Amino acid sequence: MEKIAYGMIGGGPGAFIGDVHRKAIRIDGLAQLKAGCFSRDAAKSKAFGAELGVAEDRLYTDYQQMAKAEAKRSDGIKFAVCVTPNASHYEICKAFLSEGIHVVCDKPLTWTIEQSQELADICKKKGLLFAVTYTYTGYPAVKQMRKMVKDGMLGNIRFVNAEYPQDWLANPVDEHSSIAPWRMDPKVSGISNCLGDIGSHIENMVATVTGLKIKRVCARLDSLVEGRTLDDNASVMVEYEGGAKGLYWSSQIAFGYDNALRIRVFGEKGGLEWAQEDPDHFYFTPKDSPKQKWSRGRDQFAPEAQQYSRVPSGHPEGLFEAFANIYKPFVLALAKQMKGEKLSASDLDFPSVEMGLEGVIFINKCVQSSKSGSVWVNV
Amino acid sequence: MEKIAYGMIGGGPGAFIGDVHRKAIRIDGLAQLKAGCFSRDAAKSKAFGAELGVAEDRLYTDYQQMAKAEAKRSDGIKFAVCVTPNASHYEICKAFLSEGIHVVCDKPLTWTIEQSQELADICKKKGLLFAVTYTYTGYPAVKQMRKMVKDGMLGNIRFVNAEYPQDWLANPVDEHSSIAPWRMDPKVSGISNCLGDIGSHIENMVATVTGLKIKRVCARLDSLVEGRTLDDNASVMVEYEGGAKGLYWSSQIAFGYDNALRIRVFGEKGGLEWAQEDPDHFYFTPKDSPKQKWSRGRDQFAPEAQQYSRVPSGHPEGLFEAFANIYKPFVLALAKQMKGEKLSASDLDFPSVEMGLEGVIFINKCVQSSKSGSVWVNV
Amino acid sequence: MEKIAYGMIGGGPGAFIGDVHRKAIRIDGLAQLKAGCFSRDAAKSKAFGAELGVAEDRLYTDYQQMAKAEAKRSDGIKFAVCVTPNASHYEICKAFLSEGIHVVCDKPLTWTIEQSQELADICKKKGLLFAVTYTYTGYPAVKQMRKMVKDGMLGNIRFVNAEYPQDWLANPVDEHSSIAPWRMDPKVSGISNCLGDIGSHIENMVATVTGLKIKRVCARLDSLVEGRTLDDNASVMVEYEGGAKGLYWSSQIAFGYDNALRIRVFGEKGGLEWAQEDPDHFYFTPKDSPKQKWSRGRDQFAPEAQQYSRVPSGHPEGLFEAFANIYKPFVLALAKQMKGEKLSASDLDFPSVEMGLEGVIFINKCVQSSKSGSVWVNV
Amino acid sequence: MEKIAYGMIGGGPGAFIGDVHRKAIRIDGLAQLKAGCFSRDAAKSKAFGAELGVAEDRLYTDYQQMAKAEAKRSDGIKFAVCVTPNASHYEICKAFLSEGIHVVCDKPLTWTIEQSQELADICKKKGLLFAVTYTYTGYPAVKQMRKMVKDGMLGNIRFVNAEYPQDWLANPVDEHSSIAPWRMDPKVSGISNCLGDIGSHIENMVATVTGLKIKRVCARLDSLVEGRTLDDNASVMVEYEGGAKGLYWSSQIAFGYDNALRIRVFGEKGGLEWAQEDPDHFYFTPKDSPKQKWSRGRDQFAPEAQQYSRVPSGHPEGLFEAFANIYKPFVLALAKQMKGEKLSASDLDFPSVEMGLEGVIFINKCVQSSKSGSVWVNV
Repeated sequence: MEKIAYGMIGGGPGAFIGDVHRKAIRIDGLAQLKAGCFSRDAAKSKAFGAELGVAEDRLYTDYQQMAKAEAKRSDGIKFAVCVTPNASHYEICKAFLSEGIHVVCDKPLTWTIEQSQELADICKKKGLLFAVTYTYTGYPAVKQMRKMVKDGMLGNIRFVNAEYPQDWLANPVDEHSSIAPWRMDPKVSGISNCLGDIGSHIENMVATVTGLKIKRVCARLDSLVEGRTLDDNASVMVEYEGGAKGLYWSSQIAFGYDNALRIRVFGEKGGLEWAQEDPDHFYFTPKDSPKQKWSRGRDQFAPEAQQYSRVPSGHPEGLFEAFANIYKPFVLALAKQMKGEKLSASDLDFPSVEMGLEGVIFINKCVQSSKSGSVWVNV
Repeated sequence: MEKIAYGMIGGGPGAFIGDVHRKAIRIDGLAQLKAGCFSRDAAKSKAFGAELGVAEDRLYTDYQQMAKAEAKRSDGIKFAVCVTPNASHYEICKAFLSEGIHVVCDKPLTWTIEQSQELADICKKKGLLFAVTYTYTGYPAVKQMRKMVKDGMLGNIRFVNAEYPQDWLANPVDEHSSIAPWRMDPKVSGISNCLGDIGSHIENMVATVTGLKIKRVCARLDSLVEGRTLDDNASVMVEYEGGAKGLYWSSQIAFGYDNALRIRVFGEKGGLEWAQEDPDHFYFTPKDSPKQKWSRGRDQFAPEAQQYSRVPSGHPEGLFEAFANIYKPFVLALAKQMKGEKLSASDLDFPSVEMGLEGVIFINKCVQSSKSGSVWVNV
Repeated sequence: MEKIAYGMIGGGPGAFIGDVHRKAIRIDGLAQLKAGCFSRDAAKSKAFGAELGVAEDRLYTDYQQMAKAEAKRSDGIKFAVCVTPNASHYEICKAFLSEGIHVVCDKPLTWTIEQSQELADICKKKGLLFAVTYTYTGYPAVKQMRKMVKDGMLGNIRFVNAEYPQDWLANPVDEHSSIAPWRMDPKVSGISNCLGDIGSHIENMVATVTGLKIKRVCARLDSLVEGRTLDDNASVMVEYEGGAKGLYWSSQIAFGYDNALRIRVFGEKGGLEWAQEDPDHFYFTPKDSPKQKWSRGRDQFAPEAQQYSRVPSGHPEGLFEAFANIYKPFVLALAKQMKGEKLSASDLDFPSVEMGLEGVIFINKCVQSSKSGSVWVNV
Repeated sequence: MEKIAYGMIGGGPGAFIGDVHRKAIRIDGLAQLKAGCFSRDAAKSKAFGAELGVAEDRLYTDYQQMAKAEAKRSDGIKFAVCVTPNASHYEICKAFLSEGIHVVCDKPLTWTIEQSQELADICKKKGLLFAVTYTYTGYPAVKQMRKMVKDGMLGNIRFVNAEYPQDWLANPVDEHSSIAPWRMDPKVSGISNCLGDIGSHIENMVATVTGLKIKRVCARLDSLVEGRTLDDNASVMVEYEGGAKGLYWSSQIAFGYDNALRIRVFGEKGGLEWAQEDPDHFYFTPKDSPKQKWSRGRDQFAPEAQQYSRVPSGHPEGLFEAFANIYKPFVLALAKQMKGEKLSASDLDFPSVEMGLEGVIFINKCVQSSKSGSVWVNV
């Protein structure tokens, strides 16, 4: 298969996440960076583009211009990767979609529900593919748990406990310092910091694994470090359609925790447990039986999950591979569509624009609940 | 020191927890069972008392009679251990306190706040000792964490996450079966099952370790197994005096969990973590430093904690020793008081009747919050 | 059942292990301390005996005298507990056995193979019961693993890896200090320190769980801390009868380890793993299946193991209970024998004098191998 | 920096490890695949080369021809990656080195000691770079531990316990099946299977972390699964220069273990512990202090280690990144040398041909020891 051309918006010199996207895409070698809008500074952009091997005439300082120019080229990019701060996602995604270019965008997708809804509508109308990089759902263990729930191995789900503690904002930092330049600034991060950044990963992970739809939320967003305007800790009581219940906790002040997303799902017939920091394993307790440790790459993994595993069991896979597992099905689906073939549900095995929308709804409703004194808010 | 005579109410043939109390008391050999009201059936009581070495004339079928008779004897029991179902705690404790006999009672202390308040008032007025067997606070690791918080090693506490998942009620059992005879019966268990039974352990553990006072709660009690009238799962958002926040989860439907009480405390200067199923260890993460695993019996434990350790590090101590660590300071304080010496705060190193009262308040306020649709209720 | 009278030799004021024995025996309350030879100093002995509730006329300063006097009494002790340093085990045990008194003795049983053989012979000849306190085999999880191996759930055993790292002798201590008064002194500890003290626990644990008999050993005993004459670290390659192989490591210089006895058994059909510091759980990996975590007190435990469990799963049991699980079957067997009933193999569910002998053989052969430059030595 | 051209020998369609090498190299994008000898079948090679984007005229069916042709081209490959079965390493490496082309080769390097020595000699004489892909030493945690030992944080090393259990050969497989085509065949795997394949990783990991040189070994290689001619389990007692001791265990029949390389190092001042299946963390116990859990990406990591970390702490890195950490310094050193700059020791931060030689010596001496009945053999 020929490599599919893609462009990147954001991810310039020093930007962490853009580099991760590029490295992750390179692992499978299915797509190639051919254009970019890395900086508004032309000289910087040029130097950086050269380093990445992007032709000079495809380095842009304006994403609108980039969308238009690339759409016109016969060898133009087929999809755009948007890795800018949250505030600009909506405008950038819209620009490329409008030109018929498929999009991959970081989460949270947009600030407002309406913006995300609009992006979803455009995709539907134009038949464009859109992936939101909820990275952690790319792990094979997550795919396997999703399948087990779907296959009824847990029976009806009763309760979900999910958490995401970190400690990197536990110390009072200058909120405009280089460490957390925009996260704590409402002008850039919007209405929420902690819940928006990592709480939304919880929401998406639970939705992915269980398929449950949130009916209403009762949330409390806390600013626990002095002098902080946005939240750095959040508790959410959740009620799902059908009667199951959930409890989510995200925090950035939890000393002793790096990036500890963890999900526990309890059903009528058993329980599941997975932690992002040990992504190759998960624990399954069938009713009235000992707890089992499942290991990625072993026979028990179903083909739907195992296809995302690149090395044998016991050979750790990590974040890059999880990222690559968002891009791999996205690029393969795109290639298939470009050949005029019809895509099936299993082809679309990446977080969709609708999931991005659900995430934005979740954030907005939780903020609304918290601001109203932790009342229940329908979703 | 001569062994102090005690009596037991409840804990008859087949009763699990009474046997644990007796075994735990025997470990240190500071007190001796001399009287009992094990059963209302005289024949059963006689046989059982013989097995335990209790003299026939000190086996009672009525606790009121027992309290009166023992109070009159010159060699009468000095303290009564009440291990009956919750519903009868209040009357029994009151009977013995009224006769000037000190009391140890299981938790939750009583059904109503007023009852617990009354017991606390009697103790204060009469100068009687009263311990509530919140067993898990007896572990040396808990004592050590309490001291570290008190010494300011964590700075001001910001957030507490505590949980207590079990799975022994995950299957729909006949709620009047022999397995869970009274727990699911409102006539015996009162207004709550899960929160009352294990959620109250969370409340007490957090209070013990952090010293925080609860200001208000927002709770949701769930009955997740079909056909159940009382709760088997509970989520509580907590606000403490001084501004710290907390989140508690207790559950009896969490497949894969035996008895997994766990507490995580986060302050300005570090974090603490402890799990009841690995009671000899806890984890301390000082600000900007690696996580540390502390092991009971090592030099780092302070004397206040280490005094409750009976074997060297790496030689597991368990539930019996935790129980014994409630009884040991209780009996030693009693012996000291009997000698006419004045007791200091450090002598009273066991869960007090006031803590029992706080537990009953916590349960009642959470139930009230939940019944009102999870609104905030002041404590 | 009436409490059976026992006496103790050693275990005086400040002696750690004697106190543990007494506390462990008290848990079940099946036996009662009635006589003792706690110290050669009459005044000390008297004071200490009073504290323990032993009648003054049954406090001895000479164990020979004690054996004779107790044997003559109609209410004399039925068994003697020997908790003195290793050097005196043989003479003491022999004294009591000779008087027809049953014996419980610490390990390693004796210095020489001949001494242990002699004790075993006396027991056989006189029909006396003898238990060696290889404590760690008392855990219910060990009983369960033993049964699973016996039932063929692992198929033929292929390999055993067992280890016992500690760090309490990692620092160069004054070897005649109060911390390790006799362990490093060949006059008291004999030919080996580390291997004799903890390596012998490995040998017994493997023998208990697997039933394998050692055919030959190739050992290296190291003195890794400067100035030490006896070993503080030991590696042993083992060959069993039938062709299975093993590897044992014991160490007292392993910084970071408290008392980390751990055994892993691999057979044709699966593997087992257990660690003493988490005694309530073990791991079983059936061939081609995920690893399972078994938890003491759950349904899967067989009655042969579950009978030694005193509290439900998730309520930790520890060293005292493991000790109590040596004493419980010993005392029950003794009571049965005293009633004139015949004992079955399942009655004798405690480490036998023959196991004590095997331990002494193991130590002696390993020392011989090591001194000869780590050559293979037949057992 | 312009991408450096490399070629690959082996790693054709279906070959697992070649694909891993290519993916790992792509992560950093410092080198580009420009030539290959993937198969002796011209048609297969052509198809596969096309898929990988290699020009048709640089696809070879003979590695000798490839070495010569590439050496002549002005745009010829700068280094060759050899990922063929062990038997052919020597000839292939020699062919490229002889043409002045630098080499990266899988381990074990060659069959005989003389072959490895010869390769090392050529490199030295010609000033060529040579890396042996002992992958696991690429993890940042390993680099950090190496630095801590070097900096004296453990004091003199006393003992090393290292193990590498797997279970993928625990079942009796057809040894000529597609699963393990050559590993169990002495014609392909040479004198050892388990020790040669994974035992040599232990040897290299210990040498990397501690810097210790092996003085002599006493080994036992076992064939524990019926009908097997080569070893599937191996125990090695090691003595290092300077007096430290070690114990290595590798196994492929250990049910419950995927790829569990683990190393524990004990010195005068503390202990270190690391497991390959949790590569981002290691444990450090300083003398008389609690055990610490160090996490890659946190401040405590020194720059020498942290430079190999690509994502923040808590975002798992895995095998691909470990591989990339062999290639990154290799390619950067090569680029520096190509610019005529002198390389320092810190530039050569990858497993050298001398380490490859030491590995081959280790394997050969262990086999010799085992065949002689587990006698000590000098290295």
